[in-house]
Amino acid sequence: MTPEEFRRHGHEVVDWIARYMEEVEQYPVLARVAPGEVRAQLPPHPPQHGEPFASLLRDVDEIILPGITHWQSPSFFAFFPANRSGPSILGDLLSSGLGVQGMLWATGPACTELETHVLDWLVEMLALPPAFLSTGTGGGVIQDTASSATLCALLAARERATNGNANRTGTPVGLTAYASDQAHSSVEKAVRIAGVGSENLRVLPTGPARTLDSAALEAAIHADRVAGRTPCFVCATVGTTSSGAVDPLGAVGEICRREGIWLHVDGAMFGTAALCPEYRFVHAGLELADSYCFNPHKWMLVNFDCDCFYVADRGSLIRALSILPEYLKNQATESGAVIDYRDWQTPLGRRFRALKLWFVIRSYGVSGLQALIREHVRLAQAFAGWVDADPDWERVAPAPLSLVCFRHRSSDARNQAILEAVNASGSAYLTHTRLGGRYVLRLCVGQAETRLAHVTAAWELLREAAGRTA
Amino acid sequence: MTPEEFRRHGHEVVDWIARYMEEVEQYPVLARVAPGEVRAQLPPHPPQHGEPFASLLRDVDEIILPGITHWQSPSFFAFFPANRSGPSILGDLLSSGLGVQGMLWATGPACTELETHVLDWLVEMLALPPAFLSTGTGGGVIQDTASSATLCALLAARERATNGNANRTGTPVGLTAYASDQAHSSVEKAVRIAGVGSENLRVLPTGPARTLDSAALEAAIHADRVAGRTPCFVCATVGTTSSGAVDPLGAVGEICRREGIWLHVDGAMFGTAALCPEYRFVHAGLELADSYCFNPHKWMLVNFDCDCFYVADRGSLIRALSILPEYLKNQATESGAVIDYRDWQTPLGRRFRALKLWFVIRSYGVSGLQALIREHVRLAQAFAGWVDADPDWERVAPAPLSLVCFRHRSSDARNQAILEAVNASGSAYLTHTRLGGRYVLRLCVGQAETRLAHVTAAWELLREAAGRTA
Repeated sequence: MTPEEFRRHGHEVVDWIARYMEEVEQYPVLARVAPGEVRAQLPPHPPQHGEPFASLLRDVDEIILPGITHWQSPSFFAFFPANRSGPSILGDLLSSGLGVQGMLWATGPACTELETHVLDWLVEMLALPPAFLSTGTGGGVIQDTASSATLCALLAARERATNGNANRTGTPVGLTAYASDQAHSSVEKAVRIAGVGSENLRVLPTGPARTLDSAALEAAIHADRVAGRTPCFVCATVGTTSSGAVDPLGAVGEICRREGIWLHVDGAMFGTAALCPEYRFVHAGLELADSYCFNPHKWMLVNFDCDCFYVADRGSLIRALSILPEYLKNQATESGAVIDYRDWQTPLGRRFRALKLWFVIRSYGVSGLQALIREHVRLAQAFAGWVDADPDWERVAPAPLSLVCFRHRSSDARNQAILEAVNASGSAYLTHTRLGGRYVLRLCVGQAETRLAHVTAAWELLREAAGRTA
Repeated sequence: MTPEEFRRHGHEVVDWIARYMEEVEQYPVLARVAPGEVRAQLPPHPPQHGEPFASLLRDVDEIILPGITHWQSPSFFAFFPANRSGPSILGDLLSSGLGVQGMLWATGPACTELETHVLDWLVEMLALPPAFLSTGTGGGVIQDTASSATLCALLAARERATNGNANRTGTPVGLTAYASDQAHSSVEKAVRIAGVGSENLRVLPTGPARTLDSAALEAAIHADRVAGRTPCFVCATVGTTSSGAVDPLGAVGEICRREGIWLHVDGAMFGTAALCPEYRFVHAGLELADSYCFNPHKWMLVNFDCDCFYVADRGSLIRALSILPEYLKNQATESGAVIDYRDWQTPLGRRFRALKLWFVIRSYGVSGLQALIREHVRLAQAFAGWVDADPDWERVAPAPLSLVCFRHRSSDARNQAILEAVNASGSAYLTHTRLGGRYVLRLCVGQAETRLAHVTAAWELLREAAGRTA
């Protein structure tokens, strides 16, 4: 494809996306294809010769689009948001066009320095503790996901707890980790990957508030110490995927400090709320954390992938992950004056992801992003109010931000039937969880174009479905 | 940004990239900025209010572009290629526009099924063993990098070697892994991450061919068994980052089969060569491997990130990585009729990366991709011939494909001075390695627009620099 052809087809794809933005609301939110249906339409063998670009776009329309679950629909209320925006798409497009591989400072100085800079901006924007600034002993880095951030935090914790021996002699027997039973599944995944073992993850039961119980944490740590084990890692969550519960960082953090245990705070879902001063309760006590992450690719208009991961002491992280073979050696690295982000992540290669983050922050400004968050919270609060006011429905968790957990006052089976009916309608997509053993519906507001009308329509759909399943 | 504004600014960015494609040759290949220079031009605080898109593009030109090391320059001969193409950029752009999160089949049926399908196509295109097809017990998945593929392979190996106990009770003491001293640094990184410990990685010395010595491997395994350890993982490389050496998969694979050890084959750099039947020697013996990866984001015109990772038995991989919390449960997953790729990788979330791979394969066809590989090999062979014919220079490793290792017949210091002079010229960028203790220059041909003139110019630069450093 010549530059001239790229120009022409590039305009076609941009126009395709603009039209998709305009029309996304018309598609069934949850894809209606059966397993294997997309694949059955694809030719069994790859083409021997090149095909014209028009045939690709035609197949995107005819084969791919019907198999899409529309995360960008304003009626997508499932799981968590993965919102995106024009500036983000275009920042990422520039990244693809530049084709920079930023594993080392030398292989992409602007890729590295823009990332460091924008992550420092975000410390200011979210009022994060100054220890996370790159100008001190800490710093931030873009990871693909919060799962990877949690894994890196655990590896740094393991490094610190073993004085660097884990990397050489293997994960020692007896390391233990702690999280509530509401923590994200990536905590257990990280504990497995790092060789700690899921039996050494203390999954602490939560009460009705679904938050980490600091007394239970302290007792579990004490029991492990008595048994000769080495507590090394606590993951607190602000707020949980399931219900948005915010763990008490102050109480948890004081225990971790006293015990010398690495505290990682997972703010993947709701950290972005801290753009607004009135929602900064999510981060109360964060100054006691060793590491933290939040996901601009969830609720800050930056398209996937973009998780911002911070450490207060970059030394442990780099010691856990740095290996320097001869073929990567270079003057800049040896000078010690630069950051090589390959030492801050598990893979070696890295894309120029800071561009999309920079584009979003500059296009919307702090005030534009705050307005988006406030509007989403307002819509979720309105929905929570309707649930509270209807005697047939109940809320089953606090909803201080953009996620509402609720259920019809009837059986689990009927709630499941309601959910399936709403999702089958194609007009909205919600998902479920279990809280206190009960089947619970979740409505999470976070897509860029969600307005009051979409939330109202979802509420009507739910009530109609409840009527039909009576 | 409204869809209409997106249309307008999208066209501007497409035009920017088209112009960059036309002009990239004019820029100094290796960025000339000093550490901190990019950052110093960025405002210390984030903007409170949104800025016009034009100011973003202006800063890309004025601040970012001078800080770019131009991986897409036709005179980029450093490290390894990270080539890209128009169809790939546009496939990735569509992925950004759709904003699909494909962690589960249900959250993106087309995302999942296109990936499975195209990875099966690649089994045919590279003549990989049929065991890697998804239609049998195996299958392929896109990882971000070969580092992540190696880590996943090790985790699956650990799972199999411990009958699933590693996930529960932690990485047991005494697991051992094996690779040559030329294997990629990601092998040691994976061994550390997975809690095996770098002291339990047997780094086997190589001879002049720089390939894994199967007799040394067998002896090391035997010694570990005698000592009561549990050999569980061998990583063979086709070919190495340093010199392109291709390990003898047949001999290594037979040992692994006999010993019940997981064999992972890292073809990140040169696996793509197998698109051409005449270069399939790189995969001789691959039918004995348990897992394999190669990087379309290196040498197959697909922009970063896109590593294709295959397993012959997906069961071990999925058991190593699967965790299913309530909030991710859904009918499709419970039916067992679909693939949920979150269980094939360490993160949870995933981007629709199969689009760019599909776009590249369809735009170029098998024959178009073969032509690219053959041309790059032809250019590297021409360069190798010039080195061989010049009494002042010598080649220091076989160069069957697109990487040539060579040096001036003088001191290490002079070779380093030559390299620095060439890179400082801005007209080409090469990197070095060490082989047999000596400082060695590397020229790797692989960028999409590299032609004979660029390779010729690089050779002239090297000779001139050698003259000036005499």
